[in-house]
Amino acid sequence: MILVIRPDASLAQIEHIVERVKELGYTPHVSRGESRTIIGVIGDETKTSPESLLAIPGVEQALPIMKPFKLASREFSKGDSVVHVGKVRIGGGNLAMIAGPCAVETYEVMDTVAKYVKAGGANILRGGAFKPRTSPYAFQGMGEDGLKILRDVGDKYDMPIVTEVMDPRQVDLVCRYTDMIQLGARNMQNFDLLKECGRTNKPVLLKRGMSATVKDLLMSAEYILAEGNKDVVLCERGVRSFEDSTRNMLDMAAVPNVKGQCHLPIIVDPSHATGRPDLIPAMSRAAVAAGADGVHIEVHNCPEKALSDGPQALLPHQFLDLMGDLRRLAEALNRRFSRNDEEE
Amino acid sequence: MILVIRPDASLAQIEHIVERVKELGYTPHVSRGESRTIIGVIGDETKTSPESLLAIPGVEQALPIMKPFKLASREFSKGDSVVHVGKVRIGGGNLAMIAGPCAVETYEVMDTVAKYVKAGGANILRGGAFKPRTSPYAFQGMGEDGLKILRDVGDKYDMPIVTEVMDPRQVDLVCRYTDMIQLGARNMQNFDLLKECGRTNKPVLLKRGMSATVKDLLMSAEYILAEGNKDVVLCERGVRSFEDSTRNMLDMAAVPNVKGQCHLPIIVDPSHATGRPDLIPAMSRAAVAAGADGVHIEVHNCPEKALSDGPQALLPHQFLDLMGDLRRLAEALNRRFSRNDEEE
Amino acid sequence: MILVIRPDASLAQIEHIVERVKELGYTPHVSRGESRTIIGVIGDETKTSPESLLAIPGVEQALPIMKPFKLASREFSKGDSVVHVGKVRIGGGNLAMIAGPCAVETYEVMDTVAKYVKAGGANILRGGAFKPRTSPYAFQGMGEDGLKILRDVGDKYDMPIVTEVMDPRQVDLVCRYTDMIQLGARNMQNFDLLKECGRTNKPVLLKRGMSATVKDLLMSAEYILAEGNKDVVLCERGVRSFEDSTRNMLDMAAVPNVKGQCHLPIIVDPSHATGRPDLIPAMSRAAVAAGADGVHIEVHNCPEKALSDGPQALLPHQFLDLMGDLRRLAEALNRRFSRNDEEE
Amino acid sequence: MILVIRPDASLAQIEHIVERVKELGYTPHVSRGESRTIIGVIGDETKTSPESLLAIPGVEQALPIMKPFKLASREFSKGDSVVHVGKVRIGGGNLAMIAGPCAVETYEVMDTVAKYVKAGGANILRGGAFKPRTSPYAFQGMGEDGLKILRDVGDKYDMPIVTEVMDPRQVDLVCRYTDMIQLGARNMQNFDLLKECGRTNKPVLLKRGMSATVKDLLMSAEYILAEGNKDVVLCERGVRSFEDSTRNMLDMAAVPNVKGQCHLPIIVDPSHATGRPDLIPAMSRAAVAAGADGVHIEVHNCPEKALSDGPQALLPHQFLDLMGDLRRLAEALNRRFSRNDEEE
Repeated sequence: MILVIRPDASLAQIEHIVERVKELGYTPHVSRGESRTIIGVIGDETKTSPESLLAIPGVEQALPIMKPFKLASREFSKGDSVVHVGKVRIGGGNLAMIAGPCAVETYEVMDTVAKYVKAGGANILRGGAFKPRTSPYAFQGMGEDGLKILRDVGDKYDMPIVTEVMDPRQVDLVCRYTDMIQLGARNMQNFDLLKECGRTNKPVLLKRGMSATVKDLLMSAEYILAEGNKDVVLCERGVRSFEDSTRNMLDMAAVPNVKGQCHLPIIVDPSHATGRPDLIPAMSRAAVAAGADGVHIEVHNCPEKALSDGPQALLPHQFLDLMGDLRRLAEALNRRFSRNDEEE
Repeated sequence: MILVIRPDASLAQIEHIVERVKELGYTPHVSRGESRTIIGVIGDETKTSPESLLAIPGVEQALPIMKPFKLASREFSKGDSVVHVGKVRIGGGNLAMIAGPCAVETYEVMDTVAKYVKAGGANILRGGAFKPRTSPYAFQGMGEDGLKILRDVGDKYDMPIVTEVMDPRQVDLVCRYTDMIQLGARNMQNFDLLKECGRTNKPVLLKRGMSATVKDLLMSAEYILAEGNKDVVLCERGVRSFEDSTRNMLDMAAVPNVKGQCHLPIIVDPSHATGRPDLIPAMSRAAVAAGADGVHIEVHNCPEKALSDGPQALLPHQFLDLMGDLRRLAEALNRRFSRNDEEE
Repeated sequence: MILVIRPDASLAQIEHIVERVKELGYTPHVSRGESRTIIGVIGDETKTSPESLLAIPGVEQALPIMKPFKLASREFSKGDSVVHVGKVRIGGGNLAMIAGPCAVETYEVMDTVAKYVKAGGANILRGGAFKPRTSPYAFQGMGEDGLKILRDVGDKYDMPIVTEVMDPRQVDLVCRYTDMIQLGARNMQNFDLLKECGRTNKPVLLKRGMSATVKDLLMSAEYILAEGNKDVVLCERGVRSFEDSTRNMLDMAAVPNVKGQCHLPIIVDPSHATGRPDLIPAMSRAAVAAGADGVHIEVHNCPEKALSDGPQALLPHQFLDLMGDLRRLAEALNRRFSRNDEEE
Repeated sequence: MILVIRPDASLAQIEHIVERVKELGYTPHVSRGESRTIIGVIGDETKTSPESLLAIPGVEQALPIMKPFKLASREFSKGDSVVHVGKVRIGGGNLAMIAGPCAVETYEVMDTVAKYVKAGGANILRGGAFKPRTSPYAFQGMGEDGLKILRDVGDKYDMPIVTEVMDPRQVDLVCRYTDMIQLGARNMQNFDLLKECGRTNKPVLLKRGMSATVKDLLMSAEYILAEGNKDVVLCERGVRSFEDSTRNMLDMAAVPNVKGQCHLPIIVDPSHATGRPDLIPAMSRAAVAAGADGVHIEVHNCPEKALSDGPQALLPHQFLDLMGDLRRLAEALNRRFSRNDEEE
């Protein structure tokens, strides 16, 4: 860390800063410039947050140099991590296509949608049994009954399944049914839930929070990794912005931004990011071209009757067309959609 | 709700929309204009979200007319609600000054800070025992030991206490010690936690999420009210923005904005909103002048040794000066800081 | 337009609203619902802004239905417009690659960079002679001397050129040298400058403002079109956001979002959008995959000596590699980079 | 400035960086830490932007230490600057109340509004003759005819006037009529216009851009000051955000934030910041309590017939009530509204 000292700091203040730095177990390295004194703080920065040094009188800025995450960093693991969900691989050139309805509604809808997305080439089936809804009066999900339906339909079509968990008390229950746990955007900094998921042996799909920076996202992944669970897949799903013609703003640059500093796979969810089916195909193609390890899309056979987020779902035939495009694109870029029936 | 129909929608599509509206229990009211057809959807809008109608082919826009919250609205309760925390009143001209360190650290620090803020005129004591930290390697709070210290010190100085809860599994424990439960910004849409707090008999301090709109905040309050707990105090604490010289952007207009449509008290937290002690006094004065029902400030006797958020804390003497200003201002506006020893 | 009437509006107020709507030349269409009255306002909405109706007492919301732009809309021109810059075509499957240094610095640098980008396959040469700089003490551009260098080098390599204009008084001068005028992000709502460029016969590259919505961008294009200049190319170059690891946030979804409602070509500038050379290749590929009509990239043979924006420039060999990728991608998507030597 | 070197930088790269720093006229100061090398760059930072150093291979971060503005800084001028508009003073405890309609429409409207705001205690009269409008089809202002009306009415009521200039070619014309030039939010980074206004002898009211940081605002003020014009008044008028219930988000903390580092007066415009008359009084009170040097409010006697921004205007009687509140508040804070008839 580097401390920039106020121009009007007294010598006594500077001495106090130096001693405080030593007390915290660091080695101070003082440079006096024409207009400013700066103090290099040598040692393991993750032990102390920059803010605590900022509170010492006379300190004007405390600039961190090292990244605050370790286990998620490229320094910790140089190669691209590959996460297995069932036999489907995500990362290292293997693409995931996670598709399904927003919420599990009935066995029939789930079965119909699964049949279509399987035929199109999706390799993981999604559906929410516990739904985070802005309104307490909106449909809150089917709970365990939904989990059972999702499991049955996943097995019928030989697709591993992913479903969201919202409450630490649901983690055990959800783990009995699912192949992968989803942590939603609203829970990206629900730290107790992150820890609980970090203690399971299920891969975790961690969605970026609506106002989370890329660094925040990686710090939340670090919470899961620090508990011993190494199988984390990140998901860019748009952030809040002033643009009012889309539901969120898809930060596509987050894909190479994450890949430059972190070994975990990252996929893109254009359904939540845009909230508009007319933009989903272009954003899915862009995600694959940007280097994402997969795409997460909501598909519904009758969006107008969907109990949640109907208007952002693709119809089955639109999904089919899109998958054709994505396969061509993946091929041109030497990547491929993974399959659940492949041998190791 | 109003449905705007696409200019190229067929008659069959319009008929289908009208039938679907009826199926959902609404009365459709069709107006054909020169360039557009619009359909008024008459009935209780809170039963259906606009998005589900937006998914019907031929619908271009679905515009909600009614507010999506009920119990929190001025229509439900015309006057200003007054929430009691101990004997301290918040709302209806009664101001809260919630002060204390970010985290409970030791009995000694808590005792020292409490003595000072009590002397300055704070009426509620705060301190975190469970801390939401961006990094898994940062101090996570003292847990139950911290709750005990906070309770003891609150009793010693005759101040009701408020402390944060992060996990539904902690709610019972926290309620055994605290007078008011705080729900932090990161948990504003932790819906299971909202419900759990809604089932207690403790007043709840609900902080606005970092990217929550005012409507989102009121919807989260509605979650608590809908479970039967009427004692909710809202808190504006800044939202994420591009401005990088402050920690967040304090949306001061949220105060009159909330008051115009909601009967619940709202206070302002300039400590988290700005992250800068040099801005806290001006923002506290502005909050009172804007009509807020109180202020929430972090105070620490030695910010450089604080285990959390030290640099945004006021020193005791700064707090004392500020309280003098705020009392004069409150008087000029015919309001007053409530006391814990006053008779009903 | 639709007016939503306040629930407490009096009959006299409603009558007044109806009369005011008639006065403005519209036909009112009143629907009384259970809880609200709504008034459809039939007629040409572009004559009156919704806000003026919102100011009538008793009106709660004024909801526009029609798009506020005409000449830029798909309704006005169904097909994709193709803009010619020299003989290079932009739009309708023809891709532009606009490349060059941020600022024109010397003949030598311009010549070197032009040689490289031409060899790589760029079809339009860029360079700034008038530079908008945040600081008055930073390099402000070479002015007319820079225009001459850019013209000479463009001619030498048979590349049409584009350069920025910042002041209506410079438009004539710049038009004497350039093939295309660039309007920068900071001037997207410099309406006098838009009008001035609309009166020239040069194609205009209009960059999105840092906090402009897609609708704002199209309204600014409308300013140019309304003056008679039909050759407008839009450019997404990132918007301001809370994410602090990139210079701006590239709103990739703006590409299909614009294309759905507007016939003009749109290109993407990943240099300014990200400010990071390590992210430019991925974002360029994503732009082409998303359907953009071209890419705008800064290239410099010695970024550390660049007088402006050096750190966001690609090196010549990086540019060469990227062009290889983009050509493969374009081919897979049935599109191609246009050339300046092709016959009509 | 401080350069943080990449952990994998070679010795040759570090040597090259050191030489490049010297070439640029700075003294390098190298510190080798356990995991990182940092290089202090000693000298006048305003000569080189951090970005140019960032482009040197091996440099990971370039951290500026000094503020990039000089003439606007507290270091340059310790006391609070007082700007005179006519005989009205702004700053140093003297408050401005700038009021009037959004646009000059007719002599009658201007006269009526001026009579009311003068009676209420406004000390500067505003009205736009050149209007920046998002749509080319909206009312663009009366031009010189509007300037004449504003001048006549200002003289009649003995109020200095302020009006907006949008184009460098209008500056001379506007200066012939007005007492103060307004630079609107959309032109905050119209650098040629800033320079042109900096060459006049009229005080300038500089509004913050919709996505400008506080630092950006001060850099734009620096453009005017650097041309020799010392009379700049800053204006916070809200920035773009995701909150959709107000027109912009009023960044009230900008007031003390500016005052801490800059000697220029700063006022607040709650009309544009909120776009809602119901929020203007609370935000005006808050502005005065936060330490602003004045308030800028739109007032119209018949908002529903206003040609621009009617719905955000106060009615004359609302303005009168508000002024009563503000005077009481100012008195409690030892400040006062300045008058045009006072002796120096």
